[in-house]
Amino acid sequence: MTELKNDRFLRALLREPVDRTPVWMMRQAGRYLPEYRATRQQAGSFLDLCKNRELACEVTMQPLRRYPMDAAILFSDILTVPDAMGLGLYFEEGEGPRFRKTVRSEADLAALHSISAKDDLGYVMDAVSTIRHELNGKVPLIGFSGSPWTLATYMVEGGSSKDFSRIKTMAYDQPELMHGLLSLLADAVADYLSAQVEAGAQALQIFDTWGGALSAAGYKEFSLKYMQRILSRLPSEADGRKLPVIVFTKGGGQWLSSIADCGAQAVGIDWTTDIGSARALVGDRVALQGNMDPMMLFASPERIRAEVASILSGFGHGTGHVFNLGHGITPGVNPDHVTAFVDAVAEFSPQYHQQD
Amino acid sequence: MTELKNDRFLRALLREPVDRTPVWMMRQAGRYLPEYRATRQQAGSFLDLCKNRELACEVTMQPLRRYPMDAAILFSDILTVPDAMGLGLYFEEGEGPRFRKTVRSEADLAALHSISAKDDLGYVMDAVSTIRHELNGKVPLIGFSGSPWTLATYMVEGGSSKDFSRIKTMAYDQPELMHGLLSLLADAVADYLSAQVEAGAQALQIFDTWGGALSAAGYKEFSLKYMQRILSRLPSEADGRKLPVIVFTKGGGQWLSSIADCGAQAVGIDWTTDIGSARALVGDRVALQGNMDPMMLFASPERIRAEVASILSGFGHGTGHVFNLGHGITPGVNPDHVTAFVDAVAEFSPQYHQQD
Repeated sequence: MTELKNDRFLRALLREPVDRTPVWMMRQAGRYLPEYRATRQQAGSFLDLCKNRELACEVTMQPLRRYPMDAAILFSDILTVPDAMGLGLYFEEGEGPRFRKTVRSEADLAALHSISAKDDLGYVMDAVSTIRHELNGKVPLIGFSGSPWTLATYMVEGGSSKDFSRIKTMAYDQPELMHGLLSLLADAVADYLSAQVEAGAQALQIFDTWGGALSAAGYKEFSLKYMQRILSRLPSEADGRKLPVIVFTKGGGQWLSSIADCGAQAVGIDWTTDIGSARALVGDRVALQGNMDPMMLFASPERIRAEVASILSGFGHGTGHVFNLGHGITPGVNPDHVTAFVDAVAEFSPQYHQQD
Repeated sequence: MTELKNDRFLRALLREPVDRTPVWMMRQAGRYLPEYRATRQQAGSFLDLCKNRELACEVTMQPLRRYPMDAAILFSDILTVPDAMGLGLYFEEGEGPRFRKTVRSEADLAALHSISAKDDLGYVMDAVSTIRHELNGKVPLIGFSGSPWTLATYMVEGGSSKDFSRIKTMAYDQPELMHGLLSLLADAVADYLSAQVEAGAQALQIFDTWGGALSAAGYKEFSLKYMQRILSRLPSEADGRKLPVIVFTKGGGQWLSSIADCGAQAVGIDWTTDIGSARALVGDRVALQGNMDPMMLFASPERIRAEVASILSGFGHGTGHVFNLGHGITPGVNPDHVTAFVDAVAEFSPQYHQQD
């Protein structure tokens, strides 16, 4: 394996000393970049782009050419696993993801294909290895998956949902069916993420985008439990280093202490959580990733710089912080504002890492 | 004034002993009731219904005829204040509220009409006094308003928003303009709520529906501060009793301790907050209102009853709890499921209020 030239992202996740706070952005390969939009047009549909290893690699690399990001993230969709299970993923322009089939009964659950990530999601592994080769040790590569609960919301609702009425009715009235689906997904996601590590991913993130829609008790029963199951099955190392895993539950701020005990090395927090309070709460259990409001990137570069300074100060001295947005970057952001964001982290953070 | 026959709602809000936990539902006069849909059709538009004192009274009374609710709530819209300020509220079927004009500059702010609630929102006061008369002391009447921040989101965005990009950009880049708008709204809302009390409201609720979209620091600066300002200006009594005010920030669970100090007598919590932890946190500072997941009403009556029992047990013994959903009831709920919900509170709660 090529030597990793910049490992501050991996080090911060494991709470090892770093020279400055590492930074990357969720959805950094995305529509705010004109070069992304051009490649996307060339590829055809969004799924065509995910399934083309060369173009998926190209869009993964694009933000790294513009900004000194400390990590790359696999370009893919969170719904590849249910798609491989036979639900038929497609995207309606401006409508978000949709499935041709849904899972609403025992029969639907039984009809899902048993999958092996290497065989049935080979295009993802091809993208991982292609990107890893292209990175050539510049920065580490993050693999990812949706959480079982988050995948299940799309599988049961058939697409995006405002109130999750169908899946919650299933969870409340047919808990055995719900747990059957979540168990199947946890096993598949563990296999999928393990295959990504084998193909070259050096860190992992589990996106629990919709865990925050659950009640406190429901979150533990239907989301956190299955992420714990995944974490217990992942390899402990990648390339002879400890493998760090980030769990990110959007809207999970109230449950941070439970999340910090789930077995992950790092926890992502959205912008509604005060990062100083979060650090005080989790102590040395996990690193934290986050958490600037993505809408701040619409503000002036001066205001963005002030916000970065405030978040760095809120976290305080020492390692254990990966700077990021509190959610994915929004299409429509001026790419120059991202420059201000990333540069501010590089400029203001070294003072928090000086050794005594 | 007619004597109040059932005051357990007011007593629980003030943490005085009660025989059982009082219950009502946010949006209890709503589309899940066939009689509501019939009256709505008779009235014409949603705004026509709000502006017709007899029909607004009729829909307010409808849930009380079906269920032994412990409070009635004024039927109105949260956006009456900005409408009176000249923005031109209208509703597109299935699209939510919209404004013909928006507030995005100092000039827009200056162009807003100065309003007096009694003169410019007389139709609301007429509805309050009509409902109060019709209630005839059966249960107390709740008046309400949107919070300044929540009203401002619609005024700046022009309607509902998924990411609040316009108002957040204003808050981040033009804080003086933002504070100017919020100050104006806080004064108008204080006047509006005071007029509702004068017209007959016996308790008040401030709906901060979108406060939870802010960062922790932003919430204090742009939402909580202005609710505090309103609270400091409200009358302390209604009908010779202490006036209880409920503040409900959806998604505000992480900030509960700050909210408990804002001057309100009670704090509404959504279903993502564990009510036992919330009570431990707020102690005897405030009463709590909530917090069953509205989606639970799609589950079986048996499951609903089990959830009610669990929430009552979570809060524990003693007064200071008003049972409610964690957000408004959803159209499409079977009205019989509401019976199961309300009856379960009446059946299971007395044991938590027995005096030693």
